[in-house]
Amino acid sequence: MYLGKVTGSVVATIKADNLTGLKLLVVTKVDPNGRLTNERIVAADTVGAGMGDSVLVVTGSSARFTSSTAEAAVDAAIVGVVDRVDLGK
Amino acid sequence: MYLGKVTGSVVATIKADNLTGLKLLVVTKVDPNGRLTNERIVAADTVGAGMGDSVLVVTGSSARFTSSTAEAAVDAAIVGVVDRVDLGK
Amino acid sequence: MYLGKVTGSVVATIKADNLTGLKLLVVTKVDPNGRLTNERIVAADTVGAGMGDSVLVVTGSSARFTSSTAEAAVDAAIVGVVDRVDLGK
Amino acid sequence: MYLGKVTGSVVATIKADNLTGLKLLVVTKVDPNGRLTNERIVAADTVGAGMGDSVLVVTGSSARFTSSTAEAAVDAAIVGVVDRVDLGK
Amino acid sequence: MYLGKVTGSVVATIKADNLTGLKLLVVTKVDPNGRLTNERIVAADTVGAGMGDSVLVVTGSSARFTSSTAEAAVDAAIVGVVDRVDLGK
Repeated sequence: MYLGKVTGSVVATIKADNLTGLKLLVVTKVDPNGRLTNERIVAADTVGAGMGDSVLVVTGSSARFTSSTAEAAVDAAIVGVVDRVDLGK
Repeated sequence: MYLGKVTGSVVATIKADNLTGLKLLVVTKVDPNGRLTNERIVAADTVGAGMGDSVLVVTGSSARFTSSTAEAAVDAAIVGVVDRVDLGK
Repeated sequence: MYLGKVTGSVVATIKADNLTGLKLLVVTKVDPNGRLTNERIVAADTVGAGMGDSVLVVTGSSARFTSSTAEAAVDAAIVGVVDRVDLGK
Repeated sequence: MYLGKVTGSVVATIKADNLTGLKLLVVTKVDPNGRLTNERIVAADTVGAGMGDSVLVVTGSSARFTSSTAEAAVDAAIVGVVDRVDLGK
Repeated sequence: MYLGKVTGSVVATIKADNLTGLKLLVVTKVDPNGRLTNERIVAADTVGAGMGDSVLVVTGSSARFTSSTAEAAVDAAIVGVVDRVDLGK
């Protein structure tokens, strides 16, 4: 998984049947210092995340292992809203 | 998933049986500003996309989770035609 | 798999149901000389690893193949605490 | 999937049982202009490809979704011999 | 799959149950000219490979498709000892 920030959303009327009802958000990966990088993906939201939220993203087949994305054609899902990242002193 | 643009198509007469009937399109990834990058893949079309369309691409095992690509030897599929990308102000 | 060092932890109250009870740690990949790189991921701990530990990380679908992560929405798991790496002379 | 060219072959007497009988070819990825890049992989041939052929390569779990690679320990397979790539207008 | 050379081994007493009994080797990827690169992974040995051997590595879910790694938490496995690589003239 990795840490990112929700920076946008995608609207697609024509799409695979099993994507219907899923909110598709643009997530920008953050670097170890919390700054936005240039890496951006589109992830299915499974936790009610919103614009600007710090989120945890899972990729690959595991993105299908949530109740809302089971058997869906998604390779990335937001699976957590991050409260805090503790980095060792 | 990521955002791309359809920039070509691939013709292959000799191919794996389960690819027969699938339209294979060249998709070029776009950067956060919508500009074409140098990253290009071949994806199975599952939504009737055409040249120049802005599309949503899913990769990995999830590319097999559409009605037209189930059990097929594909690792990338076009699963949406993108109407609009809203980026936060 | 690859070698890393535990450099932090993630707290997320809102998360996918099947992540509940899993400890989510920040792991920084180390280079062949054992130095920290800039590559960082969030991995589910399955072996009781702690801050500063040298660990073995598995990614992708195989991260779900441990007793504590089966069927969970994780794409990275700590599956070993590394005692020693022997590099040929 | 991506486009490549067959540039070699691999001989391995000692190998996993389920690789026996599979032809293992070296495929070099080509860039959007059809030039060879430095990216090279070893792929199982499933379509009778030969040296110098332009081929379509599938990677990941989907490489196991052909009749000759089912359940085999392969993460890349040649699934088509490319006749033609049509790029924009 | 890709070509590498065994350059080390990993000792981990505390590890996931299903890794017990597996030999974990450090494999360094080689470039098209056979020179060691900086890319290094830890792979489960399934063919009795040893230090300095030229090997074939499979990654991802397919690393679980050998008799010794079935259902194990591994994302890379050595599945062949390479005798020879023939590159076209």
